[in-house]
Amino acid sequence: MKIVLIGAGNLATNLGKGLLQAGHEIAQVFSRTMESAGALADILGSKPITDLAQVCNDADIYILSVKDTVLEDVQRTLLKGREHVLMVHTAGSMKMDVLEADRRGVFYPLQTFSKGKEVDFKEIPFFLEANHEEDLAVMRELAETLTDKIYVLSSNDRKWLHVAAVFGCNFVNHCYSMAANLLEKHDIPFSVMLPLIAETAEKVKEIHPKDAQTGPAMRWDTNVMDRHLGLLNDQPDLQEIYRLFSEHIHKAQ
Amino acid sequence: MKIVLIGAGNLATNLGKGLLQAGHEIAQVFSRTMESAGALADILGSKPITDLAQVCNDADIYILSVKDTVLEDVQRTLLKGREHVLMVHTAGSMKMDVLEADRRGVFYPLQTFSKGKEVDFKEIPFFLEANHEEDLAVMRELAETLTDKIYVLSSNDRKWLHVAAVFGCNFVNHCYSMAANLLEKHDIPFSVMLPLIAETAEKVKEIHPKDAQTGPAMRWDTNVMDRHLGLLNDQPDLQEIYRLFSEHIHKAQ
Repeated sequence: MKIVLIGAGNLATNLGKGLLQAGHEIAQVFSRTMESAGALADILGSKPITDLAQVCNDADIYILSVKDTVLEDVQRTLLKGREHVLMVHTAGSMKMDVLEADRRGVFYPLQTFSKGKEVDFKEIPFFLEANHEEDLAVMRELAETLTDKIYVLSSNDRKWLHVAAVFGCNFVNHCYSMAANLLEKHDIPFSVMLPLIAETAEKVKEIHPKDAQTGPAMRWDTNVMDRHLGLLNDQPDLQEIYRLFSEHIHKAQ
Repeated sequence: MKIVLIGAGNLATNLGKGLLQAGHEIAQVFSRTMESAGALADILGSKPITDLAQVCNDADIYILSVKDTVLEDVQRTLLKGREHVLMVHTAGSMKMDVLEADRRGVFYPLQTFSKGKEVDFKEIPFFLEANHEEDLAVMRELAETLTDKIYVLSSNDRKWLHVAAVFGCNFVNHCYSMAANLLEKHDIPFSVMLPLIAETAEKVKEIHPKDAQTGPAMRWDTNVMDRHLGLLNDQPDLQEIYRLFSEHIHKAQ
């Protein structure tokens, strides 16, 4: 398919690479600055553009992968003179109807993307939504070139998926960060924790996380918890998080 | 080596299996109830016992893997008539000196263990501490039959490792739990999140967690965060965790 990519951030970069590898043509890459448009366009063999008026009119699909806060403005500008194109966004947290195009949809890969880390799209579930069945078919055809894991999900359900992903990914990563800080402060390399992190993630493939819970809060071992809280005396933020999580783990049993 | 295992919980079960596979003899398994001592002894080809007085006197090492709260009492009872044996505990959170034996040590595998989930000991770092160099050598020899990742760590440093592991494992798993609850409440299977969970864990092998952070709190996208907090209106605990984590992620940047 002939694709225009609006955006050059983490998601656009990874998705663009995946689509190129799957054999599609990424005709243009738009970004506000020539630096970022150019960097991604170079990788994708695309034309970099910084003015939405220069976007072509004949692509099969326009993928808008920009910050949530500017999506509404960008789609409106793009719509002018392109009223009949298929426009999709990739934002898990945004309703489909933030797009005003009649041929609109959502093309949401549930994954965490960083520019410096390649991902395997085969493992990534895509959540699709479209205003028209025919466009859903086009989007499904495109998604099938990337992954087997394709779901159709309404905007109303997707918002729960998105908030769940904040807990299951963003907050998890922040737990890693806090652990890394605690270790590094005491000259213990974070790498010693990687097998534990891997096993904790691996475990929930087989055991529901509720049943996989271990640790002092799970056992409600107040001796250990009090010692830990004492160690965190000079880090009241971490103390508060420790207390809140321990209570919540205990209540959830 | 000839080993006596005191305890039959998650850690004792997994460690016992690992030691048996590595070719050691697990002579006896002690637990308070014959049910749990018997269950593990059956697997390990050991003699189950429920009375510490029946523990033999000629094992090379006595591994105490019991709840932190009873460790002090158990080791004291065990010590009577066994003043010259090598006694080690496996508790990350406990000082070595909770043991009163002269030949004492800590044999701490940094991992999360569940009875229903096999682990690969080769991937598990062991943190050792001993009162005597000769005993450290014995413990190292034993650990080397399980893993290449052997570290010597004092009780004083180990406490930081242990609290970090609560953040990096127990709290992470609780984030998975909260995500699972949010999804299941809206009839979305938790399994759709497994690739995201795997990638989030995978990523920090290459990128420091601070640099791997993504999501609305990282971008300080208050529109998305406010919508998420609104969705959690009927779950004030989750709202509080969401708010606290978002602020802490933001401050940490």
